[in-house]
Amino acid sequence: MSKEVIYTVQVEFGHCDPARIVWFPNFFRWIDHASRHFFIECGVPPWHETEKTMGIIGTPVVDSHSKFIRTATYGDTLQFRTSIPEWRGKSFVQRYRCFRGEEPIMECDEVRIFAARREDDPSQIRAVVAPEEIKRLCA
Amino acid sequence: MSKEVIYTVQVEFGHCDPARIVWFPNFFRWIDHASRHFFIECGVPPWHETEKTMGIIGTPVVDSHSKFIRTATYGDTLQFRTSIPEWRGKSFVQRYRCFRGEEPIMECDEVRIFAARREDDPSQIRAVVAPEEIKRLCA
Amino acid sequence: MSKEVIYTVQVEFGHCDPARIVWFPNFFRWIDHASRHFFIECGVPPWHETEKTMGIIGTPVVDSHSKFIRTATYGDTLQFRTSIPEWRGKSFVQRYRCFRGEEPIMECDEVRIFAARREDDPSQIRAVVAPEEIKRLCA
Amino acid sequence: MSKEVIYTVQVEFGHCDPARIVWFPNFFRWIDHASRHFFIECGVPPWHETEKTMGIIGTPVVDSHSKFIRTATYGDTLQFRTSIPEWRGKSFVQRYRCFRGEEPIMECDEVRIFAARREDDPSQIRAVVAPEEIKRLCA
Repeated sequence: MSKEVIYTVQVEFGHCDPARIVWFPNFFRWIDHASRHFFIECGVPPWHETEKTMGIIGTPVVDSHSKFIRTATYGDTLQFRTSIPEWRGKSFVQRYRCFRGEEPIMECDEVRIFAARREDDPSQIRAVVAPEEIKRLCA
Repeated sequence: MSKEVIYTVQVEFGHCDPARIVWFPNFFRWIDHASRHFFIECGVPPWHETEKTMGIIGTPVVDSHSKFIRTATYGDTLQFRTSIPEWRGKSFVQRYRCFRGEEPIMECDEVRIFAARREDDPSQIRAVVAPEEIKRLCA
Repeated sequence: MSKEVIYTVQVEFGHCDPARIVWFPNFFRWIDHASRHFFIECGVPPWHETEKTMGIIGTPVVDSHSKFIRTATYGDTLQFRTSIPEWRGKSFVQRYRCFRGEEPIMECDEVRIFAARREDDPSQIRAVVAPEEIKRLCA
Repeated sequence: MSKEVIYTVQVEFGHCDPARIVWFPNFFRWIDHASRHFFIECGVPPWHETEKTMGIIGTPVVDSHSKFIRTATYGDTLQFRTSIPEWRGKSFVQRYRCFRGEEPIMECDEVRIFAARREDDPSQIRAVVAPEEIKRLCA
């Protein structure tokens, strides 16, 4: 199991839809912020540095499974507890548990890869094995 | 099985991230647009009208499962083929298959509910059985 | 002159475009958050409460003038210093100065109104005179 | 005066805030899409091609002035009429007039530059003189 890192969000008026609840795509924005925040807190350099040093340009999502448990609205403070429960060869599971205080709001398990540019076509990406150094930093 | 409705998106520069691919939360924005567009194309009135006539304020997502197959970038035209493969009691499955021409880009199966405001607390929502009229329009 | 309230933003990967700088519409998202945050910090209740007590549903923008001075990118911490330099009859000027440390990044002067629903058509809004209580709280 | 190009937007549920009107930062998203769309319709290649051929990575905004005239909501179709009323040395004015049918909704005048990466620091940008070929294509 990895470290657990908390990413905190203040829900704002503009995050909410006419039903006055968070428009759900915003949860995926926050989850992606939480993902990056997790690596930064673990000491992994930002992606524009890892691009130079390890060839890694980011960790795109290949599979995402979410459950929405309770609605949230503006004024709420949400905490995303982020961890990596599983390293696979060229992919890993990143887990998010979103709470408002003690109340669970939503949860998400993603499969992400470490991506590098393809040599034959730099506009395309390919999965690479997770660098040992990154795994060590996150442990 | 329901109708299938196509929602078309032009990918723009601002939808893409520093890796020059669509920032994945944007797919969920488009999926939610495609969901509403599906009902509109089937002849279901907009939610601010159904709120008055049927008490229904929208169709929030309670479960979402996505696979990301290929990346997309600005200049691409994406088509979301949307359908409802399954009606359950107070929920339904809404399915999205996103293509660029013939290439699959991503796909998503959601469980959504028809939501009404709770009588005791209008800031909260509750699931209601899908109105027969809506099911008939979508068939 | 009013209070000055600071709203802090961590710039994330997904806020940036393929040129690896903040996609500028995100500045307007943050400005709107900063606007609400200003009123909350001054002690003004959230808009869904003022709708019941004063009829005010928010402070929509009617005019916005921005200068973009330096680019920002992910990893940056931005501070929006927000104030209300001028109250007019049914409108007011809200000012934002965005800094990264001591460096100015962008600035914006908006004219906003206090909006109420129109009696004849609740889907439309009308400007109302700023309540004295709100002006007092912000001073 | 330049060509005028129209960019059309369908307003969706998720573009609207709890006051059930378009959350105004979305107008700036659409304006940036309209800006790119203008150049594409005039025959200017996408920015990742101009980066290779002319060194130009995009047209960041340095000044933006908007007026919001009427609110819009989901179900509306908006048209952004885009033009370049003025070329200056290293900058130009891009103008947007947004209509719902014949009704003006908002308008915006921007100053944008043609940006290239700085040789000494590719993470920073600098303004370059508008290429004659681009000016000719837009005329």
